[in-house]
Amino acid sequence: MFAQPIATLRRDGESLVILDQTQLPWRVVERRLATLQDVADAISTMQVRGAPLIGCTAALGVAVALAAGDTDDVALNHALAVLRATRPTAVNLVWALNRMDARLRPLPFDVRREAAWDEAEAICAEDASICEAIGLHGLNLLRTLSVRDGRGLRVMTHCNAGWLATAGAGTALAPIYAAKANGLKMKVFVSETRPRNQGLLTAWELASAGIGHTLMADNAAGWLLMQGEVDAVIVGADRIAANGDTANKVGTVLKALAARAAGVPFYVAAPLSTFDAAVPDGRAIPIEERAAEEVLSVEGLDGEGHPRRVRLAREGTCAANPAFDVTPATLISGFITERGLIAAGDLPEFLRGIQT
Amino acid sequence: MFAQPIATLRRDGESLVILDQTQLPWRVVERRLATLQDVADAISTMQVRGAPLIGCTAALGVAVALAAGDTDDVALNHALAVLRATRPTAVNLVWALNRMDARLRPLPFDVRREAAWDEAEAICAEDASICEAIGLHGLNLLRTLSVRDGRGLRVMTHCNAGWLATAGAGTALAPIYAAKANGLKMKVFVSETRPRNQGLLTAWELASAGIGHTLMADNAAGWLLMQGEVDAVIVGADRIAANGDTANKVGTVLKALAARAAGVPFYVAAPLSTFDAAVPDGRAIPIEERAAEEVLSVEGLDGEGHPRRVRLAREGTCAANPAFDVTPATLISGFITERGLIAAGDLPEFLRGIQT
Repeated sequence: MFAQPIATLRRDGESLVILDQTQLPWRVVERRLATLQDVADAISTMQVRGAPLIGCTAALGVAVALAAGDTDDVALNHALAVLRATRPTAVNLVWALNRMDARLRPLPFDVRREAAWDEAEAICAEDASICEAIGLHGLNLLRTLSVRDGRGLRVMTHCNAGWLATAGAGTALAPIYAAKANGLKMKVFVSETRPRNQGLLTAWELASAGIGHTLMADNAAGWLLMQGEVDAVIVGADRIAANGDTANKVGTVLKALAARAAGVPFYVAAPLSTFDAAVPDGRAIPIEERAAEEVLSVEGLDGEGHPRRVRLAREGTCAANPAFDVTPATLISGFITERGLIAAGDLPEFLRGIQT
Repeated sequence: MFAQPIATLRRDGESLVILDQTQLPWRVVERRLATLQDVADAISTMQVRGAPLIGCTAALGVAVALAAGDTDDVALNHALAVLRATRPTAVNLVWALNRMDARLRPLPFDVRREAAWDEAEAICAEDASICEAIGLHGLNLLRTLSVRDGRGLRVMTHCNAGWLATAGAGTALAPIYAAKANGLKMKVFVSETRPRNQGLLTAWELASAGIGHTLMADNAAGWLLMQGEVDAVIVGADRIAANGDTANKVGTVLKALAARAAGVPFYVAAPLSTFDAAVPDGRAIPIEERAAEEVLSVEGLDGEGHPRRVRLAREGTCAANPAFDVTPATLISGFITERGLIAAGDLPEFLRGIQT
């Protein structure tokens, strides 16, 4: 079982301790979240990020809220509503909160506190198991691809869907960690992922794990794919509609279009909790628009090695900042889930199967 | 005729004065280039950039070299070779140097100095006229597009193909300046253009001209196009093969793929000197790979308003940094040239016509 080098989140008494991802890769900072508002702020400011980890954090956030206050239906409804409003796109958030709701609502008020911790910790433990299963199914897929090329497999990913994005090994990176553990030779192309540069988190993860990788500007993805430099693209997901249309970090659809043009397979690695059968297609997925400031400035290390935010454009410049985009199912070769690889065409039938 | 707010380059006695674009948009710094090596360095370090301006600067660089040294064939060959080696992708560089060669080589050594200045200045003046013509042909095109939408036209561009990239009004932005001068209502989506952020130069140009614009991360182009937020894409070019395959700033092909998927027309604005009839298709265009450092760090303004370079990834991180990519002709709706709009399908016949 994959062990996180640093826990992305953990219970500590009646509060949570998270790894503050806005400080990475510059500083490893843990932060204590002791109230509902602490947890909500940590999600909306992206101190925790990644669809599966957002779900785990929200579930634990319900436990924090009940531990710190009342446990009646008013308190439960309030906690669920505050957490649900933190971010609109990732469905794992809603999924985890619905599961907490279903578990807690039938219970007497006096046992809800302990039940909330139990259920939330179960969600986190399941997430780690799911990542492990995604890793093994993805490893089988990578083995079939790597047969084609004795020089080692070249995988491109986007954003960060590694252990930082989950309570376990990650989604898109889980097959890569499994491949490393099993001696497969490989190299990973990591896109910078402006405006929030989550690619630097991926580069940091891969460097720590001793996995060869090459950083690139997001703009370079098309050329590298079309030059035959990449054997497969694997990304995570924030919400997958019933028809397979997939919302993921903005820039994903550009890579999917280029992969299709280059004849390179494009995979989405995600737990089943990311699939939203209630949403028929991508048009119904809400896409979060974040602050222009994220585009207008960036953080890096200055000459003295201190993190420093610098302004890229003059204040008052208008900026569009959709945080996600939707990749049509037709561009997706398959979904790597904890139940195995699902071809995009088989998805509707698969989803009907698990609902019944 | 469009007047550059600041001359991108000008002769001053026996030397050149350039606007140092590596200092923009933070500082307006002019730099004197008094030797062949000064000029070559200014091109290779991107103090001057943009395919048409690179051609103009190289032509003037030959004049600088002859003014400062010998004028015989050895000196001429040396100047041409040094300048030709500065950057591999933009064909305007080769085109301008070939034109200088053809003009100077038949002349007696003692008249080459003055002839070099004359020819180089003629190339610059012609570039300004060509930009003007591209602007007017582009304006006609924008008028046909803007009829569709009373709310004003929404154009997306990539990198900087404005007046900063030429000796005149620009290429991709020339139609936009012409539209502004003619009262057309419009808005421009400007992609950041990592790793060198030339989109900030475009935003600076447009802000100075009072033209409404919205900056975006390169990653956002796909979503904005597929959401119907954009009526047309116009980009510049560094080299266009005989079949219409177009090398331009890396990231261009991703926008072209997304424009096609969204049903949005995609235009390339370029002078005829950018067309390279000797290159049959995009596979034969050399693509410059620049230093990894450009990807690993970025410059912005610190809290005190001083330009400061910050490191984005740890030193020693591998980075791929292709400076250009090739957009297949099949994704291009048409070429806006000084001779008018050429449909991509008509290009081979058009090129045969101007060669004879």
